Amino acid sequence: MSDSFLPQDRYFGPDSRQKEIAARLYEPVAHLPLICPHGHVNPKLFADPDYTFGSPTELFLIPDHYIFRMLYSQGIPMEALGIPRRDGGDVEADHRKIWQIFAENFHLFRGTPTGMWLNHELHDLFGVTEKLTGANAQEIYDQISARLSAPDFKPRLLFERFNVEVLCTTDAATDPLEQHQAIRESGWSGRILPTFRPDAVVNLDHPDWRPQLDRLSEASGITVDNYARYIQALENRRAYFKTMGATATDHAALTATTAELSPGEAETIYQRALKGNATAEDAQRFTGHMLIEMARMSLDDGLVMQLHIGSYRNHNPHIFERFGLDMGADIPITSEFTRNLAPLLRKYGNETGLTLILFNLDETTYARELAPLAGHYPAVKLGPPWWFHDSLNGLRRFFDQVMETAGLYNTVGFNDDTRAFPSIPARHDLWRRAASNWVAGLVVQGIVDEAEGQEMVHELAYGLAKRAYHL
Amino acid sequence: MSDSFLPQDRYFGPDSRQKEIAARLYEPVAHLPLICPHGHVNPKLFADPDYTFGSPTELFLIPDHYIFRMLYSQGIPMEALGIPRRDGGDVEADHRKIWQIFAENFHLFRGTPTGMWLNHELHDLFGVTEKLTGANAQEIYDQISARLSAPDFKPRLLFERFNVEVLCTTDAATDPLEQHQAIRESGWSGRILPTFRPDAVVNLDHPDWRPQLDRLSEASGITVDNYARYIQALENRRAYFKTMGATATDHAALTATTAELSPGEAETIYQRALKGNATAEDAQRFTGHMLIEMARMSLDDGLVMQLHIGSYRNHNPHIFERFGLDMGADIPITSEFTRNLAPLLRKYGNETGLTLILFNLDETTYARELAPLAGHYPAVKLGPPWWFHDSLNGLRRFFDQVMETAGLYNTVGFNDDTRAFPSIPARHDLWRRAASNWVAGLVVQGIVDEAEGQEMVHELAYGLAKRAYHL
Amino acid sequence: MSDSFLPQDRYFGPDSRQKEIAARLYEPVAHLPLICPHGHVNPKLFADPDYTFGSPTELFLIPDHYIFRMLYSQGIPMEALGIPRRDGGDVEADHRKIWQIFAENFHLFRGTPTGMWLNHELHDLFGVTEKLTGANAQEIYDQISARLSAPDFKPRLLFERFNVEVLCTTDAATDPLEQHQAIRESGWSGRILPTFRPDAVVNLDHPDWRPQLDRLSEASGITVDNYARYIQALENRRAYFKTMGATATDHAALTATTAELSPGEAETIYQRALKGNATAEDAQRFTGHMLIEMARMSLDDGLVMQLHIGSYRNHNPHIFERFGLDMGADIPITSEFTRNLAPLLRKYGNETGLTLILFNLDETTYARELAPLAGHYPAVKLGPPWWFHDSLNGLRRFFDQVMETAGLYNTVGFNDDTRAFPSIPARHDLWRRAASNWVAGLVVQGIVDEAEGQEMVHELAYGLAKRAYHL
Repeated sequence: MSDSFLPQDRYFGPDSRQKEIAARLYEPVAHLPLICPHGHVNPKLFADPDYTFGSPTELFLIPDHYIFRMLYSQGIPMEALGIPRRDGGDVEADHRKIWQIFAENFHLFRGTPTGMWLNHELHDLFGVTEKLTGANAQEIYDQISARLSAPDFKPRLLFERFNVEVLCTTDAATDPLEQHQAIRESGWSGRILPTFRPDAVVNLDHPDWRPQLDRLSEASGITVDNYARYIQALENRRAYFKTMGATATDHAALTATTAELSPGEAETIYQRALKGNATAEDAQRFTGHMLIEMARMSLDDGLVMQLHIGSYRNHNPHIFERFGLDMGADIPITSEFTRNLAPLLRKYGNETGLTLILFNLDETTYARELAPLAGHYPAVKLGPPWWFHDSLNGLRRFFDQVMETAGLYNTVGFNDDTRAFPSIPARHDLWRRAASNWVAGLVVQGIVDEAEGQEMVHELAYGLAKRAYHL
Repeated sequence: MSDSFLPQDRYFGPDSRQKEIAARLYEPVAHLPLICPHGHVNPKLFADPDYTFGSPTELFLIPDHYIFRMLYSQGIPMEALGIPRRDGGDVEADHRKIWQIFAENFHLFRGTPTGMWLNHELHDLFGVTEKLTGANAQEIYDQISARLSAPDFKPRLLFERFNVEVLCTTDAATDPLEQHQAIRESGWSGRILPTFRPDAVVNLDHPDWRPQLDRLSEASGITVDNYARYIQALENRRAYFKTMGATATDHAALTATTAELSPGEAETIYQRALKGNATAEDAQRFTGHMLIEMARMSLDDGLVMQLHIGSYRNHNPHIFERFGLDMGADIPITSEFTRNLAPLLRKYGNETGLTLILFNLDETTYARELAPLAGHYPAVKLGPPWWFHDSLNGLRRFFDQVMETAGLYNTVGFNDDTRAFPSIPARHDLWRRAASNWVAGLVVQGIVDEAEGQEMVHELAYGLAKRAYHL
Repeated sequence: MSDSFLPQDRYFGPDSRQKEIAARLYEPVAHLPLICPHGHVNPKLFADPDYTFGSPTELFLIPDHYIFRMLYSQGIPMEALGIPRRDGGDVEADHRKIWQIFAENFHLFRGTPTGMWLNHELHDLFGVTEKLTGANAQEIYDQISARLSAPDFKPRLLFERFNVEVLCTTDAATDPLEQHQAIRESGWSGRILPTFRPDAVVNLDHPDWRPQLDRLSEASGITVDNYARYIQALENRRAYFKTMGATATDHAALTATTAELSPGEAETIYQRALKGNATAEDAQRFTGHMLIEMARMSLDDGLVMQLHIGSYRNHNPHIFERFGLDMGADIPITSEFTRNLAPLLRKYGNETGLTLILFNLDETTYARELAPLAGHYPAVKLGPPWWFHDSLNGLRRFFDQVMETAGLYNTVGFNDDTRAFPSIPARHDLWRRAASNWVAGLVVQGIVDEAEGQEMVHELAYGLAKRAYHL
């Protein structure tokens, strides 16, 4: 029963010899510690020793836009799924009723990565041994509820049970990192590290830019009333993040455009922005300039620089107005790196002391731009498939299109990149299986031998991420 | 013999276990009725009970640009293939001679979808059991000729023999639908439905726009001398198509650009066009505006809206001048949906009463834009691979790149999209085999179980198309 | 041992039946003569009967940017690899020490085409039977050195041993072809042909354009002080290349933009360029115009026209300034053919007397633009995957994305496109194996039968290239 629900050799093959070899390669890495260098888990889970996850619906559905976007796409209103409205208006409050809708539509997730993660989580974490359906929905709800209220179902205990070696959160540049302080002071030994994410103070068109600047002054103790002091304040915050254990920064931009401004231009644009008069062009130029500045700071302080490109945020204004950010309505656009990143790489691409990890939502850049760049510049490494592409086929396309030109050792292993802490083992397991199966394919085709393949799988599962992020 | 020419397990695999499972999944859907929601079969075939297909060359080659474009690409003049010239100049009239050329070059179609469809058609419809070659060309010609002149080789009888449940044609907005009237009045029970295609009256740069406008006035009884009456006339024609059984509209544009005009702007551009002074920019803006208008009308009248994007028509002026439209010289261009479709989706994308089915010739949009859009917006569904991409590999790429993110249930099954009525079973069979093999791959890899897989294949073969098009 | 290092059935599969069929299809083509219609081998190797390759490091590493770019990407300075600096500054001169670095980093090439070629070359040419590692580096160095100094290790003897039927070099339009003269006069029977490559005199922004023009006057005996004489001089050089055996030309451009200038415009831009005042726009327009002119000349003189598009040269100015051109720092960009090539194709695309072979670094154009163009225009053929894409997966993607629409017979087989003469057999062998495996997949899936498949593999390995290049 359990076997047909979640087969032991899942995601291997289809060729039977490849399946066998993949299983052999997977076995020694299946239970290696998890390195989680990039994600969005709330540090509060670990700061508060008594944190609980709420109902099954609160655990699985309400916070996960991967799930409710699929239900919404089929015409189920988000209100009916209990997604909170910004205006506080009524939404469905009966979690059993929402769960029933979810279960009756569970077939929508057939063949999707969300479906794969959910099945893994239901099986391994909650002992569910059959597929979720409308018929068994309430029974499984009870089963999950019981487990959720068990005394061992606490984030810290799960962290240990999941064998997480280190987990990095993502934190605003202005964040005082109080949760991280609390974790440290609690004496708990779990390694939870912050990541410096300055988008809100760097992207002039960020809705919160102005209030965030005030918070930046406050947090750094430097009044950021001119560009030079703004730069100082950012350096100050990076230093603080480092003292709190950070090893990396993260930057998001619509495009990979980089271009240096003269000090005078930077000051002029900055002052215009302070007065609320920055144009869209100002914002784009300033972001492109600040990416170069951030590379310079990384070279100074050693923080690994991550760059995430190509998400058109809040494509659906109706959803944004009613429910807010991160509601499943962000859609990818085309990206370009060869020309856009040239100014940054011209300046810092040859530095062995810089690690710039690129992420992107346009797979056409894999073989055309990203792999050639990573296979040449000492500073450039490639992040794993991001967001819509960290699916089984997305991973395959990445392996097939990137590795021949970039080389395995210019990639950085896996990031689970999730808010959903309990889904982390499922995500790493899918990656480890996909990696084992890719390498097994190379073995079957006589490209590498099995001993080399075992080393490659170990790197993919553990070594690459640990080294790339200095963990 | 027949087996090696057209193997029973063709298009399954390559893995042997996947082949077995695919065969099992295919078996129950192989003979399901055919739903044909979009295509270009001439309704005259069914209006005229005595319609005949002519010679083998007239059936297979002269009307099919998929075939003669390949011969032309190898240096065989279109005149030598009997393609009629616009100026009425001489072209080869000996159909046996043309057939001989075709047969001697049949190796050009190795591994092409055209080759697969041709072999299926020759085998199943004409009883041919060996590959067409120069040596057996005339013998096979005779065999086909005999079959073509048999009394049971009439479109209506083939329609029944093919087990077509419903077949939708594509018809100009100004078409009086006389053939459809004749079919209805004939008492024949075959279900042939029109589809509303207003490109010629919507795209201001269409060569026939002005004369078509007069036909629009005539057909609707509304003199379309201003924009408001033009809109009324279109609504009037849609209503007429609905009374004739239409369930859908179809729209073609070079790009997916949409943007609403103010009523004043729309009127100004419309008047400029009436005077023959519309610019290229006017045409693009007007089309982009009318797509939003058509979505509004679809929301009102319930007609499913299809959008076909990205064909650069008549790329070869020499061919256009000599032979006209649809002569194999249309070439795809890149497409963009995320930004271009945003204005339309902002307005109507959240409407569960609208179904907008997207088709496109740029596969890079599958995983990057189309699947994310379909996996979020209630109104958006994805059409199957179009034109150059409805090949075996094209179907595989679609399944692999779309389904994980869009979800199977945001796609709409198959469209044969053909002028060539006798090729319809071959096209659906290729789709059903490819779908069975894709799902068999999921089963072998432990992603879905065989019972789930069977449901998915049934949806792909029959259910999705029937529901999406309200058939 | 040797078998696990370089398995007999490598690159076949993964399916076991596909492997068997691929091996059967490969066997009769494995040792067919090599047709090398496009590459960058220095003709001096064959002009000088005593030419030697130097040390193992000089043979394998120093001249091959595929290899040192990967080492550089991992932070190893190019100076440490013995790459000569333009300023003559010190670089590592101890070839054993460089070889040791290479061997210790040989794992970087796992799964890369460079790794596959290297292993083949080490095994077949030097008798190495185990993987290169830090531990066996010096021993293998000795083994290769001994072989390199053997009397039979001369390019002419290798040419015969490799069974090369014809090898085309690439030569500047202004090249007097002295090496080719010397080969002819030597009485050696090896067929080494020049290829006319006029980029330096055609692209106004080429750093050497002005001095190259003087060489053009000198070589042709026509003072190119106006546009008409410039055209005459180019025609004169093409005629000379033809007398020396050339059957083709080759053209590189950043984009595929073509557009005809009026004679007056061409003269104006040409005169501006002679005065050193040409703008970037002038350069682009002139190149786009000259591509059409070159097509006209090809139609006149019968030389096959090759076009290579999409490499952003010298992306890393630091490397360019220190080490010069072709140092692994060229990065692909997106390409567009449908619109860009329309002016050229409108004029000459229907000519059966012209062969225009397209190469490109943006795989998204394969199925979208290139295959549809080649499947229609008599003049257009598609070159094999270029540069970053002539890897095992790159070849697979080409077969999968091109062949269904273009048809096999609108492609031109393989080009090794290499400077590294001793790597030629490895490159052709990889292609022949990949081609056999692709066709074997068609056989397993019942798309072609094995007899047809054998013909297709023979075409891919030998016939297509020979015919397309008139060799």
